[in-house]
Amino acid sequence: MAEGVHEHGALAGLQLVHTGAHAGNRQSRMPTVAPSQLASDYEPFTVPKALERSDIARIRADWVRGAERARGAGFDIVYVYGGHSYLPLQFLSPFYNRRTDEYGGSFENRARFFLETIEAVKEAVGDDCALVVRMAVEALGPAGVELDEGLAFVRLADPLVDLWDVTIGSIADWALDSGSSRFFAEGYQLEWTGRMREATQKPVVGVARLTSADRMAEIVSSGVWDLVGAARPSISDPFLPKKIEEGRYGEIRECIGCNVCISKSEVGHHLGCTQNATAGEEYRRGWHPERFEPAANRDRGVLVVGAGPAGMECAVVLGKRGFEAVHLADDAEELGGQMRWVRRLPGLGEWGRIVDWRQGQLDLLRNVEWIPRARLDAAAVRDYGAQIVVVATGSRWATDGLNSATHDPIPGADASLPHVLTPEQLMLDGKRPPGERVLVWDCEGYFAGTGAAEKLALDGHSVDLATSLHVIAPYTDETLEGPQVRQRLHEVGVRQHRGVQLVEVTPGGVRATDEFGEPFELEIDALVLVTQRLSDDALYHELVSDPDALAAEGIEAVYRIGDCVSPRIIAEAVFDGHRLAREIDADDPASTLPYRRERLVLGSLNT
Amino acid sequence: MAEGVHEHGALAGLQLVHTGAHAGNRQSRMPTVAPSQLASDYEPFTVPKALERSDIARIRADWVRGAERARGAGFDIVYVYGGHSYLPLQFLSPFYNRRTDEYGGSFENRARFFLETIEAVKEAVGDDCALVVRMAVEALGPAGVELDEGLAFVRLADPLVDLWDVTIGSIADWALDSGSSRFFAEGYQLEWTGRMREATQKPVVGVARLTSADRMAEIVSSGVWDLVGAARPSISDPFLPKKIEEGRYGEIRECIGCNVCISKSEVGHHLGCTQNATAGEEYRRGWHPERFEPAANRDRGVLVVGAGPAGMECAVVLGKRGFEAVHLADDAEELGGQMRWVRRLPGLGEWGRIVDWRQGQLDLLRNVEWIPRARLDAAAVRDYGAQIVVVATGSRWATDGLNSATHDPIPGADASLPHVLTPEQLMLDGKRPPGERVLVWDCEGYFAGTGAAEKLALDGHSVDLATSLHVIAPYTDETLEGPQVRQRLHEVGVRQHRGVQLVEVTPGGVRATDEFGEPFELEIDALVLVTQRLSDDALYHELVSDPDALAAEGIEAVYRIGDCVSPRIIAEAVFDGHRLAREIDADDPASTLPYRRERLVLGSLNT
Repeated sequence: MAEGVHEHGALAGLQLVHTGAHAGNRQSRMPTVAPSQLASDYEPFTVPKALERSDIARIRADWVRGAERARGAGFDIVYVYGGHSYLPLQFLSPFYNRRTDEYGGSFENRARFFLETIEAVKEAVGDDCALVVRMAVEALGPAGVELDEGLAFVRLADPLVDLWDVTIGSIADWALDSGSSRFFAEGYQLEWTGRMREATQKPVVGVARLTSADRMAEIVSSGVWDLVGAARPSISDPFLPKKIEEGRYGEIRECIGCNVCISKSEVGHHLGCTQNATAGEEYRRGWHPERFEPAANRDRGVLVVGAGPAGMECAVVLGKRGFEAVHLADDAEELGGQMRWVRRLPGLGEWGRIVDWRQGQLDLLRNVEWIPRARLDAAAVRDYGAQIVVVATGSRWATDGLNSATHDPIPGADASLPHVLTPEQLMLDGKRPPGERVLVWDCEGYFAGTGAAEKLALDGHSVDLATSLHVIAPYTDETLEGPQVRQRLHEVGVRQHRGVQLVEVTPGGVRATDEFGEPFELEIDALVLVTQRLSDDALYHELVSDPDALAAEGIEAVYRIGDCVSPRIIAEAVFDGHRLAREIDADDPASTLPYRRERLVLGSLNT
Repeated sequence: MAEGVHEHGALAGLQLVHTGAHAGNRQSRMPTVAPSQLASDYEPFTVPKALERSDIARIRADWVRGAERARGAGFDIVYVYGGHSYLPLQFLSPFYNRRTDEYGGSFENRARFFLETIEAVKEAVGDDCALVVRMAVEALGPAGVELDEGLAFVRLADPLVDLWDVTIGSIADWALDSGSSRFFAEGYQLEWTGRMREATQKPVVGVARLTSADRMAEIVSSGVWDLVGAARPSISDPFLPKKIEEGRYGEIRECIGCNVCISKSEVGHHLGCTQNATAGEEYRRGWHPERFEPAANRDRGVLVVGAGPAGMECAVVLGKRGFEAVHLADDAEELGGQMRWVRRLPGLGEWGRIVDWRQGQLDLLRNVEWIPRARLDAAAVRDYGAQIVVVATGSRWATDGLNSATHDPIPGADASLPHVLTPEQLMLDGKRPPGERVLVWDCEGYFAGTGAAEKLALDGHSVDLATSLHVIAPYTDETLEGPQVRQRLHEVGVRQHRGVQLVEVTPGGVRATDEFGEPFELEIDALVLVTQRLSDDALYHELVSDPDALAAEGIEAVYRIGDCVSPRIIAEAVFDGHRLAREIDADDPASTLPYRRERLVLGSLNT
């Protein structure tokens, strides 16, 4: 790995971490260890062994051996990781450390383990390697280290450290470190980590959900930090540093801060990104984020119907693959499809970059034309003159209460009535609830239900949010947003109900059951149905049902992509559009090419 | 794999599965597919693509290719898997299938996909391979196939099938298929699957949490089924069939039905078992469940202090390793440690087998002596005459409200007062709540809090269960018990509160905060504190703090195992005791030997 990094002129770094009380150790079956025997606030079921002196010596020796191995393998940078309330901070924090020996009590005693570890690793790596300490200078909660003591530790260890990597928060509320754009503004950590200069003579790198090149440059040029850490923005655009270096600011595909990368990697065990369809596909599908092969069939005219995330991405990639004429058509005035309303939900403004970046790319591609206000039925599509048709007509929320629990509509739930609304009617069509009291019924569990509830509350309605699920918006727990989502709803006055199954919409209210199957009734003036989405696939089916009519007009292929195949998260719609464009000259573009599952054991990527 | 199975005279089977609507496809990023576009009741965020005809043909062809590969690799049995409401049952079930083509509507149409798949696989495997169909004959819920139609399908497909593997339930309530002993009696599935004879001429295998050899024999000899499936009982005792064959019934280590195997494999990604410490350790640690090497130091006398799960297991394994004299001492009258009260919680009776099996083993081991009513302080341990001392003194629940969220006691929470109780006081010491209204405060989230609440309600108390966590008993979701736990508590009248943090115990009640940090007060007569456990490690520390005194009495080593190191699930305490006994003649028995992490790529296990 280190050699591979060096080939590209970069430095290779390795983070050595011990998570202490927060390690479940389910693989190794070793007892969890920590300064004191206090149940983890991150995994409350985990009660650690209080470290004996011999354990402390062993862990320090393990850290040294790890550092020596890293140096031996050619790494240039080795970390002593003190973020996230992991072991070094557990010693430093009175919340975790109740020891009465020389490792507990006074600040000097609590700092001893962290400092000894840094000293030992410094000695182990010698002058061959830089030593970096990641440090959460402010835990922002009960978990412990406050800014004064955080900076005091920085002063204490400063002579030993080559670079400080500074952050805030604790793993028990990981969002404080890796906040989403829905709840955390760009640069939010600077309130605390911007004060590192008070305590250190050494270079500083920080993170703070920084996504814009301008803001990054301002922080470095003003001297607050020396380097900017940008993991998520680099997933969104791996060429971010290069584009800044070369002044190609407009080409930067800026991170939207949705944290789908965290959901996909932590829960789905495959890294992915809403903005960058190639993230996680570099090796297994051979997709380079910036390189596109000319398509063998690029002389064919392509019509993409639907300018949502899938359609936009498909048209952009077709353009980059050298198609001579790509038309991207939509019946709307604007690009974006569902993004036209999603970006207007409270907190989701930055998600608009999904549209804005692609709009910028379309502007640069002379071979791709954007056709607004194009109401194309099957006949119009056939007559259009394209040889390849890509249907990307998206999906719509069910208007009748169709839901995952019963697979049936709900009696009385009919969005053609004035008091029953879908999210699109509310956000895009201007339909208003005909009274103060609104119930949002969410059977999906991501942003649409909670976003609609928050918006209605901010608009002055008295709002109840009921979910058929056993948690409010469980998908937002995967994006580190769950606790913030539920607290925000509470703060704007939304009453939250879990495990609620609607039985019937009655005049003036709903009949339902609660999480235990008991009756639950609510008087309301309006109901918003966030139950399930249905593909807008009528155009596709009408086209493919008459192959002769297609052939008569010279249409060689009709494909469909995105939500009109299956309604998914936006990242998958973008991926689907990208995938088709990458493989549109394969034998059967409708079927995804197999990807590489093998992990190389012998040989190298170059052989 | 197939060859490895054949070497032992067994048949090798392969289950080919398509999960349809329930597949999140987070790795492959392919659209989920199902008969109709209805959101999954198992993963409500997943909305499938409705299968096109070409998709159906592709899936059938995939199944055929998989079956051909299985046959080619030497497998003797290939499955078409129709359990769990996976794809074949999704076609059969009107809950998932709303198609209007020849694959939907009438029973014959809904059966078509399943039947066509069986036919195609049957043709593919020819006479080389047996074809087995796993079939959930009754979904027991809205998910669909009811017994009449389930048996009707069995009749329809019977000529094509070599063996029926029969079960019940749907993956959305997986517990119906893999129920725990807390909620499902041995044999519970027979009410439905015992009727297979009405519909088939072919052999039948079934599952039903069957753990006792007698019950298995009764089912087979009465002709209800021909074979008994026993996955969990075989994890608990891999030699179960061999022991039955050889009539060694008393040696069977019978499964307790705790479903920790499911928690450990599904969530922890490593298989393990409460009863069998060697489960999942066969390859990586080289532990054979029935073979024990004579210990190099077996001439040393060993004293094990504490006869809970860790101490019992350690003593048994030391005995099997040929130690000449092992004494297992406890101040209690009975073996079992914490199991003395845990097995008396509602529904946990079968967990008593943890004690009973080890008691049986101890009875057989002439070199291990059980010493009850032995109150051993450090001086008595030193004087005992053993050369090796193993401290296994367990843990106790905090008596002061010490908890994971604040890491501090709760003012007023003092179990020396009449109205504040720990689980041990309630279950073991005979202390009774001094009034009707009882609050159980659970910061742990497994069986102790919910078990105490259920018991108190059954005893006639008016019970509130408040948890500091955001779900009631989240660990029971890992063991497939969560929905049953919460419903059971509701049925016995326990009021459930989530996200509750106690602030103070006042005369007559508690002051607390709710999940949003708002005030929450409750008037109660008694409080049960299920906050965190603390190791009973005083004896261990007193012993090791005076090495000279140990040496003076000829004591060569003092070890500790189980909860007195770190309070964990019972499976880990048992593992810890087993681990020490397996490695007690290693260079440093206090440290776990490294286990094999490598997966063999070239060569075989035998080289």
